[in-house]
Amino acid sequence: MIAEYQLYCAGEFRKTEHQLDVTNPHNGKVVARISMGSATELDDAIVKAAMLRDELRTMTSAERYNVLMEISAAIKTDRQRLAEILSAESAKPLRYALAEVDRAAQTFLVAAEEAKRLPKEYISLDWTVAGKGREGLVKYFPAGIVAGISPFNFPLNLAVHKIAPAIAAGCPIILKPATSTPLSTLELAKIIDRTSLPKGAVSIIPMDRETGNKLVTDDRIAVLSFTGSPEVGWKMKSDAGRKKTVLELGGNAGVIVTPSADFEVAVTKCITGGFAYSGQICIHAQRIYVHESLFENFVKEFCGRAMLLKSGDPSSIETEISSMIDETNAKRVEQWVNEAVKAGAELLCGGKRNGSFYEPTVITGTSVNMKVNCEEVFGPVVVIEKYSSFAEAIVLINNSKFGLQAGVFTNDIRESDTAFNEIECGGVILNDVPTLRFDHMPYGGIKDSGSGREGVKYAIMDYMESRILVR
Amino acid sequence: MIAEYQLYCAGEFRKTEHQLDVTNPHNGKVVARISMGSATELDDAIVKAAMLRDELRTMTSAERYNVLMEISAAIKTDRQRLAEILSAESAKPLRYALAEVDRAAQTFLVAAEEAKRLPKEYISLDWTVAGKGREGLVKYFPAGIVAGISPFNFPLNLAVHKIAPAIAAGCPIILKPATSTPLSTLELAKIIDRTSLPKGAVSIIPMDRETGNKLVTDDRIAVLSFTGSPEVGWKMKSDAGRKKTVLELGGNAGVIVTPSADFEVAVTKCITGGFAYSGQICIHAQRIYVHESLFENFVKEFCGRAMLLKSGDPSSIETEISSMIDETNAKRVEQWVNEAVKAGAELLCGGKRNGSFYEPTVITGTSVNMKVNCEEVFGPVVVIEKYSSFAEAIVLINNSKFGLQAGVFTNDIRESDTAFNEIECGGVILNDVPTLRFDHMPYGGIKDSGSGREGVKYAIMDYMESRILVR
Amino acid sequence: MIAEYQLYCAGEFRKTEHQLDVTNPHNGKVVARISMGSATELDDAIVKAAMLRDELRTMTSAERYNVLMEISAAIKTDRQRLAEILSAESAKPLRYALAEVDRAAQTFLVAAEEAKRLPKEYISLDWTVAGKGREGLVKYFPAGIVAGISPFNFPLNLAVHKIAPAIAAGCPIILKPATSTPLSTLELAKIIDRTSLPKGAVSIIPMDRETGNKLVTDDRIAVLSFTGSPEVGWKMKSDAGRKKTVLELGGNAGVIVTPSADFEVAVTKCITGGFAYSGQICIHAQRIYVHESLFENFVKEFCGRAMLLKSGDPSSIETEISSMIDETNAKRVEQWVNEAVKAGAELLCGGKRNGSFYEPTVITGTSVNMKVNCEEVFGPVVVIEKYSSFAEAIVLINNSKFGLQAGVFTNDIRESDTAFNEIECGGVILNDVPTLRFDHMPYGGIKDSGSGREGVKYAIMDYMESRILVR
Amino acid sequence: MIAEYQLYCAGEFRKTEHQLDVTNPHNGKVVARISMGSATELDDAIVKAAMLRDELRTMTSAERYNVLMEISAAIKTDRQRLAEILSAESAKPLRYALAEVDRAAQTFLVAAEEAKRLPKEYISLDWTVAGKGREGLVKYFPAGIVAGISPFNFPLNLAVHKIAPAIAAGCPIILKPATSTPLSTLELAKIIDRTSLPKGAVSIIPMDRETGNKLVTDDRIAVLSFTGSPEVGWKMKSDAGRKKTVLELGGNAGVIVTPSADFEVAVTKCITGGFAYSGQICIHAQRIYVHESLFENFVKEFCGRAMLLKSGDPSSIETEISSMIDETNAKRVEQWVNEAVKAGAELLCGGKRNGSFYEPTVITGTSVNMKVNCEEVFGPVVVIEKYSSFAEAIVLINNSKFGLQAGVFTNDIRESDTAFNEIECGGVILNDVPTLRFDHMPYGGIKDSGSGREGVKYAIMDYMESRILVR
Repeated sequence: MIAEYQLYCAGEFRKTEHQLDVTNPHNGKVVARISMGSATELDDAIVKAAMLRDELRTMTSAERYNVLMEISAAIKTDRQRLAEILSAESAKPLRYALAEVDRAAQTFLVAAEEAKRLPKEYISLDWTVAGKGREGLVKYFPAGIVAGISPFNFPLNLAVHKIAPAIAAGCPIILKPATSTPLSTLELAKIIDRTSLPKGAVSIIPMDRETGNKLVTDDRIAVLSFTGSPEVGWKMKSDAGRKKTVLELGGNAGVIVTPSADFEVAVTKCITGGFAYSGQICIHAQRIYVHESLFENFVKEFCGRAMLLKSGDPSSIETEISSMIDETNAKRVEQWVNEAVKAGAELLCGGKRNGSFYEPTVITGTSVNMKVNCEEVFGPVVVIEKYSSFAEAIVLINNSKFGLQAGVFTNDIRESDTAFNEIECGGVILNDVPTLRFDHMPYGGIKDSGSGREGVKYAIMDYMESRILVR
Repeated sequence: MIAEYQLYCAGEFRKTEHQLDVTNPHNGKVVARISMGSATELDDAIVKAAMLRDELRTMTSAERYNVLMEISAAIKTDRQRLAEILSAESAKPLRYALAEVDRAAQTFLVAAEEAKRLPKEYISLDWTVAGKGREGLVKYFPAGIVAGISPFNFPLNLAVHKIAPAIAAGCPIILKPATSTPLSTLELAKIIDRTSLPKGAVSIIPMDRETGNKLVTDDRIAVLSFTGSPEVGWKMKSDAGRKKTVLELGGNAGVIVTPSADFEVAVTKCITGGFAYSGQICIHAQRIYVHESLFENFVKEFCGRAMLLKSGDPSSIETEISSMIDETNAKRVEQWVNEAVKAGAELLCGGKRNGSFYEPTVITGTSVNMKVNCEEVFGPVVVIEKYSSFAEAIVLINNSKFGLQAGVFTNDIRESDTAFNEIECGGVILNDVPTLRFDHMPYGGIKDSGSGREGVKYAIMDYMESRILVR
Repeated sequence: MIAEYQLYCAGEFRKTEHQLDVTNPHNGKVVARISMGSATELDDAIVKAAMLRDELRTMTSAERYNVLMEISAAIKTDRQRLAEILSAESAKPLRYALAEVDRAAQTFLVAAEEAKRLPKEYISLDWTVAGKGREGLVKYFPAGIVAGISPFNFPLNLAVHKIAPAIAAGCPIILKPATSTPLSTLELAKIIDRTSLPKGAVSIIPMDRETGNKLVTDDRIAVLSFTGSPEVGWKMKSDAGRKKTVLELGGNAGVIVTPSADFEVAVTKCITGGFAYSGQICIHAQRIYVHESLFENFVKEFCGRAMLLKSGDPSSIETEISSMIDETNAKRVEQWVNEAVKAGAELLCGGKRNGSFYEPTVITGTSVNMKVNCEEVFGPVVVIEKYSSFAEAIVLINNSKFGLQAGVFTNDIRESDTAFNEIECGGVILNDVPTLRFDHMPYGGIKDSGSGREGVKYAIMDYMESRILVR
Repeated sequence: MIAEYQLYCAGEFRKTEHQLDVTNPHNGKVVARISMGSATELDDAIVKAAMLRDELRTMTSAERYNVLMEISAAIKTDRQRLAEILSAESAKPLRYALAEVDRAAQTFLVAAEEAKRLPKEYISLDWTVAGKGREGLVKYFPAGIVAGISPFNFPLNLAVHKIAPAIAAGCPIILKPATSTPLSTLELAKIIDRTSLPKGAVSIIPMDRETGNKLVTDDRIAVLSFTGSPEVGWKMKSDAGRKKTVLELGGNAGVIVTPSADFEVAVTKCITGGFAYSGQICIHAQRIYVHESLFENFVKEFCGRAMLLKSGDPSSIETEISSMIDETNAKRVEQWVNEAVKAGAELLCGGKRNGSFYEPTVITGTSVNMKVNCEEVFGPVVVIEKYSSFAEAIVLINNSKFGLQAGVFTNDIRESDTAFNEIECGGVILNDVPTLRFDHMPYGGIKDSGSGREGVKYAIMDYMESRILVR
């Protein structure tokens, strides 16, 4: 019998007429059947959320902390089962699914702690004669209802990066999970429902895109936090009216490997950054620039290991790479690689597709206008190119419309400083791949990769408005 | 002979074909003739600004400090003359013009100091096992070219609140002053030009609205900072594409006068808050709610003083109230008051217009749908109403689509706390009118009154992007 | 059979020859027998602590967090039993013992969170030409071995306020509990021992005063944190050599009750502040200044309730007041009260002693040189005096050699501001007694009441040294 | 005719009976005659200071800022003359004297800015149920009278590092300059006297040591800030009673030169760090550890340049090295070097004394127990030794009872990290000598080198006490 998931709307679980099957991308089997939300559910959620405004705003730090810690603990307790569900809906290998569940628990924990530590300010206002005797207190208030839209690739933790800050901030939130991977988030709904958080503070509603667009345009919503593709995201910003908009979009993140780096470490980490979850990660290490003196060795070693990656059923703890989210995407990636090869790029390994599975693939000799180089490939494809000077490597990295994160393998202080100062992006990762993210660090992109920063306390602040008391 | 002002574009002063006369709203005399910018000048300014990106970004704190302090000092030195020009272009009484010039100097001074104190972060990343040995450095980088659009009512200091932070942040800025009052800003251009700031870092270009709209839509501009009317502002946000948008719009700010307050202080400050610069101030004290036990006395005292306000030539230091910015606006205000009276409101004093001069006017018995109550009157009109409980007063204040600042006259801690926690706005001013603003405090509104905060260091941060180095 | 407690030294529990009986001050029964430490145990603890230096310094935030949270959780789990032991050793009524145990758990929890958030700094150094291109990173390193000396009155939580920050800071600590009340701390030792904290990082060693003095004089110890009596504390500072010294001493805390306050709230809270744990609290509300208009009523109401306080066995949850720590102290308090009465003060209620129990006692008409007024009474004695103006009340409060905390019952903003600005102390508590303390707030005194601040993050910083990297 | 300087006491300049000649250490000529203070002047200063307490405490930020900026500007204006006086009293070469005067102006400027930015806190107190509705405001209050004792080697700027923070904090200060070099400080007194700072807020009184000791022992003084020798400093701490004590003492600062460093830069900076002001600097680069692969070259190059240093009259802008402060010290240094050579060290260059002039001297082959290695040489003597691994270099640097600053020339990230984490000191300077200091950075030592940190905002905080308002 197939599991059934109701949506979580306005504080209650509801079964709706519009049912959708969620399938395992690896084997095509139906994992569960879910209820999809319509304009009715969305409106109910908004109305209920609006009613909770004062109740949420006046929750004490202790109350917010307790709710968030309770959720964090429940996730830890249910770690294995949640990871299995997450793996099944997304074909994410279990090892990565477990890591994601752990991170979701950590994200709630950090939110619990930050809820007590909003950076309130107490400032002197007597900087001029006019301010004699005056001081200012700056406090933060919830901005209003948050709409969160999260993607399939980290179905749990990227939703949590919107939900946990919203609870910490005292904002009601309505979250639209990706319809392909809604199950782990709906499991989270059950956990949240068991806490003392006022019912309706969090709604989790799978919707089709058309219904979901109301989250963008509805005036009753104050903040839109979207994680997904650049085209969709930037369009939303224009349609969002007066809403504050946080966009966490994608990129074609680059890596620089210099001669001063630990070669072995660089190769190992690049393999993970390049192929974890088949590259379906915003900060997937898509472009690797290797110093010419290391290039040949690096390519050899890298391709060797790429071909040894253990592929197969995502539910096995041994599996390192599995199917992509769907065949459409696998075909798209295949086509991009083929296009590149046709245009002169060299295929170093991989390149074959089997249904929704696409092999770990490495190419070189690309040019900047090839899609595998300049667009977000979101698949298990890595471009490796050589460079001769560090300055050139910086130019190559920056030659992109995106700017999310970059990795730099070096032990040279001057190179590290140059990278930090010159690479146009939201984060430079030293001696690791751009794929590295800690849940409490500021995270987000510039250029086409988005605007605003997530990372719990930064997201909390995005959901709040400051107010000064001049006394 | 009439003074001529060239626009300041891409680091040079230019005379253009499109000339415009700037007149003194009080006596209709031409004060000066200015060059208006066209798409050509705007494009030149943008191109030059883009070229300066790295040069500005790599300026040291010391260099930014020195430039900003030099400007501040030059403004102080030239205080009297600048105030006279400002007074002439805007009909702002000299006493207020002098205060504005002083504040502009202070705003540059604060920016100089803040340029050295960007709130860089140094955080631990070893909160989980995965982060062992890792730390994060968060630094801020200029976001790109800033477009500033400033209004007529504080022609100098509201432009300075965009220019000074831009210099501090290392962003080039193109400022469009109000075409009715561009002179004090063009004087500032001359001061800036004498410093060592790279030429083209600041352009000050009067433009017609159509040309100015390119500031909103041009993709080469990263940040749009607009101070002006709500309708124009919110429209811009939708048109601004990927730009970060800061909107400082207007409101119908309210005041509460409670029995525990110092009555004399309350009346005196409300007179200033209500009629300074004929109410043409975003945080003009438009609605005054007085406790019923004080109402009669307050009204009597307030109207008495309103009628004693010394009107006349703005260039006299004695003058307290002068003409409005133009006759169109004076007529609009006249009409709003007449409408209200026709609909049942009571005119307590004032109500007459003479050309562009409108008398200090007080009305009561208004309802919430009258324009003088619910819209931004931006004229010398004050609505006074009574309330019976503090809770009721809060409801009255909040019954507005705007939320900029509010004033509360009270000596009761519980009322002060309630006001801070419950009034929906960007700032609550205790024992003073909402019209109070210090240049380094966070300033800005919620609801229809805008988004984002100015106040030097807050504006600086709006013009910058964070980047983390994970090491 | 009598429980036996071994001391906790250098990572092991040890039984020593020097045994001491711990008795219940209420009934004189032996509660347990403990091992006292000699110079040998102390030296072993120091030697071991010194060896752990690098191991503790390099623990990650995650490791510190986990250890501290584990301890916090274990305290919560064992709440009832710990409170009973604490109550038995100290005659603290069970209701207060439970509250203390809860606070100890909270103190560890806060330390866990703060361990991740040391306020590292990242500053620009290019404020002058000489600093071009330079930045500074400021990080904190454990200062070395901490010696903690804690008193009998909060035997658990005041020890925890030294131990938890030490663990968070990465400093080994050797704690000397009060010999009259060592049991709850030795129970804590068992909890700590079960965690993965390196053995020897925390030693808890009951010692006689002579042995304990080596904690003050030994050069291998870097920080001395003492909570106790002023005479002992200040003497230690002189003897402490190069050690950093934190002194949390006592006071004769005052309260002001104004006409604008909620009378009922003021009386209720003053009863608790005056008689909780028989006034054996550093921030005991010893001096209450009541406005003359309220004085008579206040005295009547206060004495009435004081006499209704339920006295008896501390192990009963009903008991509100029980025996003092020993008969010596009860006799001392009796003598102070008698002296005062002989010198002209008026006894309003109480004043009788029965063994180590001393009645809730209220006196008035005191002069500043009477011990009950000017010294720390550390017993269930409250002096109530009248005042006529708020300014006078401030003078009365400040007329003391001490300056720990003060309580002010008022709803007037001007009085609240005056109190904050003018009362010479470490903390002003609005609308509550000085006895209020939250474990994460900065806490400590000025004048004779001590130096330095505890309150987890403040204590952590006292145990660390800053180091800057100029890069 | 010889210049006469009166002391500055309790707001007035006074001539006393006890006159002292200040001589130029280079040519022995009397530069000026000063009035020395006795117990009478000291007591007058203390009494007056105590009376100003409230007046200083209630000065606005604006007032503090204005006074401090005025002083800063006056120093800049009088730069050349002040530098000449400073050079004459101390035999500091004019180039360094000018730099010191510039830094003094900068120190006042920074203090002006920081006076407006005390890090007041606004914290949530509702972390537990007991704190529901409670918040805390933490504000800083002047601790009381500051006693400053400053040394001869930076006679102006090290006095300023005590005076400027005191003014910013609102504390009166009594400064005892070194009796050999009091003139530049007494010039500063004249500048301060011209401002609107309340008279008596700053007293500058040259005293003999016996009189000066009353600054240490007098109970009316709240804070003692001493810069000078370790023996004197630590003794003071024991004698200081309840005072907060800040000690900025000396050291035998070390440098590491690694193969990855820029050799030329390292040599050049080490020459300055080693011989500027004849090594009479707390952070003089006394011990240079050079990697064995560079050792020979480094020594050759270093000695070559040391011998080319231009010696002579300090008043010439060409002079790079001049006489030491007195012949006694020159003889002491001579003896230390001779002792070392006798015990087996090798003299590489220098080693000769001529009156109070001692040649730039380099030795190698020292052992750790030689005074030139383990004590603070405070003369133009540099020990250069070789090392073979970076870990060894760290051990060598740390093998000292001192811990002030260290310099590390490297371009390797791992070495930089190790240096920051492992060198036991207050500051690690990357790619520069330990002699580098910026006036706003935290500066101070650990181990025998002192306790507390100066660096304007850090010093300000040392002169203040926190007070929390729990509301």
